[in-house]
Parts: sequence; structure tokens; C-alpha cells
Amino acid sequence: MQVSDPEWTDIEKNIARTAFDKAHKREVEALLIHVREEASTIVELGNLWQLHDFLSAKRFGIEGKYDYQYSGLLFVFAGLIKEGWLHINELEGLDKDKLSKVAVLSRM
Amino acid sequence: MQVSDPEWTDIEKNIARTAFDKAHKREVEALLIHVREEASTIVELGNLWQLHDFLSAKRFGIEGKYDYQYSGLLFVFAGLIKEGWLHINELEGLDKDKLSKVAVLSRM
Repeated sequence: MQVSDPEWTDIEKNIARTAFDKAHKREVEALLIHVREEASTIVELGNLWQLHDFLSAKRFGIEGKYDYQYSGLLFVFAGLIKEGWLHINELEGLDKDKLSKVAVLSRM
Repeated sequence: MQVSDPEWTDIEKNIARTAFDKAHKREVEALLIHVREEASTIVELGNLWQLHDFLSAKRFGIEGKYDYQYSGLLFVFAGLIKEGWLHINELEGLDKDKLSKVAVLSRM
């Protein structure tokens, strides 16, 4: 399946950017809530280093994942759907070919 | 000034261990309070990564600093006094030579 470098119309670019930002916002908000909750319960140094390890992994994951480049965007969306940060409906307006590629990739 | 490998009596070892553990406990408790407070105010991803950087530095610092080996213990105590986690009075009972070395080192 060829998914790299599909063409994006201006309308699609708007839809993509909005969906991307929405997913990012959701994931960040969930992360902040989780960290605030976790941190409030920490009473031992070991738990603190666990939180540190968790943040290291999250930082690496988030910084790597939210890469807004059209050549890889369908993969990014598929991943975000898989993880629950985006719903395929929120990509409505992209052409059918892109949507079906995202749908297939998100089930892999 | 020769500070490595001084001899430690059993009484001194007890005093040293108690002081070491006390300083560690104080620093850890202060750190946990700080992190709980910081985390509760985080509303942006940038602040979260700042906390992550802070924890990385603290972890490196704490794990390096609290090294209980008699050969380096006077340096460790001097550092802890300098940083405010230990008071020289809490080393009372160590021989005068050790105490004066720690006092000198803590002012360097």
C-alpha cells in the first residue's frame, strides 16, 4: 500500500491540522492530569524515579509521534486513532483513499 | 590535606550512618514536597518537560552524592553541610581530626 507523499488540498490540510492539534491537546491534557495525580501520591524516592522514567518515555514518545509532515501524516493519524486520541470521524473531509488507508493502518 | 581512608571506630561508623541517613531523608522529603507542589501547578507541556529535566538532574545528583564509602565520607558530609542537609553538630562523636576536616571542606 502506497501511503507516502499523497497530495493534500488546502481543505484537507486544514482538516489534518485541526485533527492533529486536537489529538495532541487531548493526549497532553490526559498526561498532565495523570502526572498531577501521580505526583500527589508520591511518598517515596522510588516512586519519584518511576515517575521520572515514565516522563522520559512519554517525552520520547510524544516528541517522536507528533511530527507534522504530510509524507507521514496518514501513519501518524492511524497511530493516534489506535491509541484513542483521535476518532476517524474527525478526519472526515479527507479524500476516501486517504481515509481508507488510515482506517486500514489503524487496525494493523 | 589527607582525607582518604581515615580509620573509623564502630562508634564513629554508627554516628556517620545516622547522619548520612538523616541528611538523605531530609533531602528526599524536601524533594518530594517540591515535586508535589510543582506538579500540582503544571498546566502546559513545556512545564512538564521542565519538571522532567529537573528530575533528571536531581536523580543524577542524589544517586551520585549519597555514596556511603568510608574513603569518601568526609567529602560527602562536607557537601551535605554546605547544601544544608546536615549540621556539623550531627557529626559530634567523630574524632576531632575528622570533624575539623569536614568543617574545612564544607567551607571550600
